Amino acid sequence: MIRLDTQDAGFAAAFGELVDARRESDADVARDVQVILRAVRDDGEAAVAAFTKQFDGHDLSETGWRIEPADCRAAYEALEPELRAALDLAAARIRAYHEKQKPTDSDYFDGQGVRLGARWTAVDAAGIYVPGGRAAYPSSLLMNAIPAKVAGVERLVMVTPTPKGEINHLVLAAAHLAGVDEVWRVGGAQAIGALAYGAGRIQRVDVVTGPGNAWVAEAKRQVYGMVGIDMVAGPSEIVVVADGRNDPDWIAADLLSQAEHDTVTQSILFTDDADFAERVAEAVDRQIPELATASVARTAWDANGAIIVVDSLEAAMPLVDRLAPEHLELAVDDPQGLFDRVRHAGSVFLGRHTPEAIGDYVAGPNHVLPTGRRARFASGLSVLDFMKRTSFLGLTETALNELGPATVALAHAEGLPAHAKSVALRLRLNR
Amino acid sequence: MIRLDTQDAGFAAAFGELVDARRESDADVARDVQVILRAVRDDGEAAVAAFTKQFDGHDLSETGWRIEPADCRAAYEALEPELRAALDLAAARIRAYHEKQKPTDSDYFDGQGVRLGARWTAVDAAGIYVPGGRAAYPSSLLMNAIPAKVAGVERLVMVTPTPKGEINHLVLAAAHLAGVDEVWRVGGAQAIGALAYGAGRIQRVDVVTGPGNAWVAEAKRQVYGMVGIDMVAGPSEIVVVADGRNDPDWIAADLLSQAEHDTVTQSILFTDDADFAERVAEAVDRQIPELATASVARTAWDANGAIIVVDSLEAAMPLVDRLAPEHLELAVDDPQGLFDRVRHAGSVFLGRHTPEAIGDYVAGPNHVLPTGRRARFASGLSVLDFMKRTSFLGLTETALNELGPATVALAHAEGLPAHAKSVALRLRLNR
Repeated sequence: MIRLDTQDAGFAAAFGELVDARRESDADVARDVQVILRAVRDDGEAAVAAFTKQFDGHDLSETGWRIEPADCRAAYEALEPELRAALDLAAARIRAYHEKQKPTDSDYFDGQGVRLGARWTAVDAAGIYVPGGRAAYPSSLLMNAIPAKVAGVERLVMVTPTPKGEINHLVLAAAHLAGVDEVWRVGGAQAIGALAYGAGRIQRVDVVTGPGNAWVAEAKRQVYGMVGIDMVAGPSEIVVVADGRNDPDWIAADLLSQAEHDTVTQSILFTDDADFAERVAEAVDRQIPELATASVARTAWDANGAIIVVDSLEAAMPLVDRLAPEHLELAVDDPQGLFDRVRHAGSVFLGRHTPEAIGDYVAGPNHVLPTGRRARFASGLSVLDFMKRTSFLGLTETALNELGPATVALAHAEGLPAHAKSVALRLRLNR
Repeated sequence: MIRLDTQDAGFAAAFGELVDARRESDADVARDVQVILRAVRDDGEAAVAAFTKQFDGHDLSETGWRIEPADCRAAYEALEPELRAALDLAAARIRAYHEKQKPTDSDYFDGQGVRLGARWTAVDAAGIYVPGGRAAYPSSLLMNAIPAKVAGVERLVMVTPTPKGEINHLVLAAAHLAGVDEVWRVGGAQAIGALAYGAGRIQRVDVVTGPGNAWVAEAKRQVYGMVGIDMVAGPSEIVVVADGRNDPDWIAADLLSQAEHDTVTQSILFTDDADFAERVAEAVDRQIPELATASVARTAWDANGAIIVVDSLEAAMPLVDRLAPEHLELAVDDPQGLFDRVRHAGSVFLGRHTPEAIGDYVAGPNHVLPTGRRARFASGLSVLDFMKRTSFLGLTETALNELGPATVALAHAEGLPAHAKSVALRLRLNR
């Protein structure tokens, strides 16, 4: 963890390093992934089965390729009541929030009698990647699957590796709850290839989303353009802006809730109270050993944590914009003034009683958010990621006579005579 | 050009080939582009200058790096009145259409007293690539720049190669009209690198859009994730669905307006009238020699043109969906019935008096559209491509007590104790 003060002589340079820190693992996986994707494209099912044997250690012809809807339903029904109620609450709230994202079509006539508009439709099929093992989060499945279903996607496909045949029952329960239509026991780059190109019994989809390891992320990058994908994901981060009137333990837990995810996550506190800064640092050190995730959290906090003392919280906001954080907590009594100054952030958590974790599970907004400074240009996952817009245009003969001559002039100026001709032939004056 | 009839025995296979035809040039440019991008990232300005010397044949220290706003204004003012009026009309109509795309923020309280919402903001800076030479289209500049300005982008940067120092004055005029803030005389993959990483006097941007050759397209693909980009562009296509009551010359010109763009474009006619099909084929052959673009149009039509006779126009629509065309004309008296059946198309042109070319220039909707079957999942360029959404959330103590326990249960189930703790500490019962 580094401590900075905006009054320090070296602050600008040190903060610049924090902004530019490359925390992405540099594993040179691009070539491996290319080989896997080509094999899946060319050999389909056989390649998927071979890679599954190699990487996940099971034979799909023995374990079966699919997990049946009945198994997902059974997993859901077997949940202990408290957990089932929690999942139900999360799904209902996520659905309600995303329902409001559904775009409205437009269809109107302008002053020249031209009919103009745009119509939104869902993609036919979407695929969701769900990691196996420790990082298999039912909440993540809900966050990917529910927007797709709200968008109106008819065929929603989930792929997940089941190393040595192991299955995460909580994820299956969430798949049932979210209305996933197909579940395939395949993972890694080969699963992304199967979704993008199709592979025998696994038919191709139009959009692929969901988190994964470096191979999965690289595979998504490589198939981008063949299919739509959600944003390239990097290590995540939290920025907390807090005055001295917070409980240091609350803020320490918030910083650690990011640090416990991965050793490359970044947790940063801005405060205008140097004493409070010290008490948060102590609270973090006190809390870490109590966590089952202590080892990961310790590494992340030591390597990428920061506490920055600022003259005023207002003065922190331009620095926050440079970080363009995935998560931003504004832990003050009246957060609106600070919030009005935020330009770049994935999701903002307002006030002392809105810890980031509440947004990870049950609040409603999506927890798939732009990381690694990408909030400068990217947004969280939404219903729009599973839809596309068709623009349309209808001219009467009168309208064409009004707009046609300008089109003819521009087409000729661009050296495109057939463009000009297709309009000119239809003009009354036939210019 | 191939002729197909849905009644033919081999129709399904032949149509499948048409859908899957890979028309993208396979030039192995990925490695070259990687080398160029790394050099620009590491050496900045010096690398950009060296590549410009090498590929465009001019020395930026002599020709100057920038084209000044005054030069763009002068180019606009020097336009002949008819052309200037045409550009003005196009810009005004494009602006009006895109104004309606501006998203609305949401901010509401739900039944549990949770404040929820989403706020849209423009990216700080956007870069637009404009090809040099023959493919430098002022219309294309308007279609990229105006949505960015409507979105509220404060710094709009244009890059364009000026081989041997040559400048396209029509493009400069359009840059003035669209409100471009900076124009740089650099092109190719090195220009994309400068926009994505920054290179000395060229500061980096957040989003890069605009058409280019294979090197430019590959460079955009490689910087995707560092910056936002518009969709990977492939060769374009037009599908015309027409009954026998159209003028064959009109439809032939429409097909050729796509064919004249590039030898890899695809023009396809569906009609329920075999005689009409024949007359269109004759009209195409008659029109081609009259075009200044005859050679390109001939090659494209011969290689990738198709006329398909169907039992009914309704029966054509599922086939159109499989093609997911960039442009779709419905040349019938009452196009609405057919339009209602369209699921996948970039832009639809309704009725006999709406040739596709009118949409390329002055109608208003964007002409940057998904190609190569990507309308299955992608949309035309819009204001949204230059904006991003920040979700937000605010809980009162009461609301947290209501939603907290479910969050704690799910966080524990996912093995994330700091997540659980950050919520539990704030609960009144402190569970």
